[in-house]
Amino acid sequence: MYTNCDALKPELDLQFIRDVPLPPELIWAAWTTPEHIVHWFTPAPWRTTKCQIDLRIGGAFLTEMQGPEPEQHFSGVGCYLELIPNRRLVWTNALLPGFRPNPSFADSSCGDFPFTASIELEPIATGSRYTATVQHRDAAGRAQHAAMGFEEGWGKALQQLIDYMQSQA
Amino acid sequence: MYTNCDALKPELDLQFIRDVPLPPELIWAAWTTPEHIVHWFTPAPWRTTKCQIDLRIGGAFLTEMQGPEPEQHFSGVGCYLELIPNRRLVWTNALLPGFRPNPSFADSSCGDFPFTASIELEPIATGSRYTATVQHRDAAGRAQHAAMGFEEGWGKALQQLIDYMQSQA
Repeated sequence: MYTNCDALKPELDLQFIRDVPLPPELIWAAWTTPEHIVHWFTPAPWRTTKCQIDLRIGGAFLTEMQGPEPEQHFSGVGCYLELIPNRRLVWTNALLPGFRPNPSFADSSCGDFPFTASIELEPIATGSRYTATVQHRDAAGRAQHAAMGFEEGWGKALQQLIDYMQSQA
Repeated sequence: MYTNCDALKPELDLQFIRDVPLPPELIWAAWTTPEHIVHWFTPAPWRTTKCQIDLRIGGAFLTEMQGPEPEQHFSGVGCYLELIPNRRLVWTNALLPGFRPNPSFADSSCGDFPFTASIELEPIATGSRYTATVQHRDAAGRAQHAAMGFEEGWGKALQQLIDYMQSQA
């Protein structure tokens, strides 16, 4: 029996919870608008140089990121799995847009790892409770993501999101 | 740009189209009810010995299949991606229930392949136009599925579905 599939599995998942001084609507907009994404998505000194979003189930979520060195170029490609406006955004890089299994992970030595990520937003008196959860296929994927600085990276990006969206108000 | 992600890619996909003398509602019921699935899902002499369905996006689609020899035992596990009642059913084995990337495909030598399958139903005068499409991550996955007898297997299973549902009428 598969029960509690949606429950956090600490040995496989990473989670990041913060109270954010923005309403869910602005955080949702920041996550689903390419013009916003490029301003906050990648912790400085990395930059997001490109973003394409097709905001429907199975639609594309594409990003291109550039580090301080010219060779530090990275592309992310995934598709949306759940879209509940202002509440819950789920995407995965295990499937390409249109739901095709991503061939990048056919070989576990490719250096990258598949994940499914969700952003959950809950309105609170001061703004939003922000919960980011990343599910990995195995403990090695979780360990690799943690070693890349998940906690610090998502924290920095979230602060960039807050600063940027407040500057737009 | 990812455009036309939902278009058939003949080098990666397998497709099966038939006109079926059943209304979409009965075919949908056959595909989404464990008590029905066990009667038709696996081409004889294989049998489906168990089925579990959690009919929601991200919910489980589990099957256990038994061949004529005792060692021919196979389990299928996947999750639903799209559910448009009586029209469109999409699931993948690349993600476990709850959307976690499936660790079974971390190693391409595991002997199995990830896929995303859709069943599309369109009402026609004589019943339904039935379109089954299976997307693979690479040409090797498509070739392996084709060699397993995709066309014959899905054909036999569909005929079993028709016979069984007509016997229930």
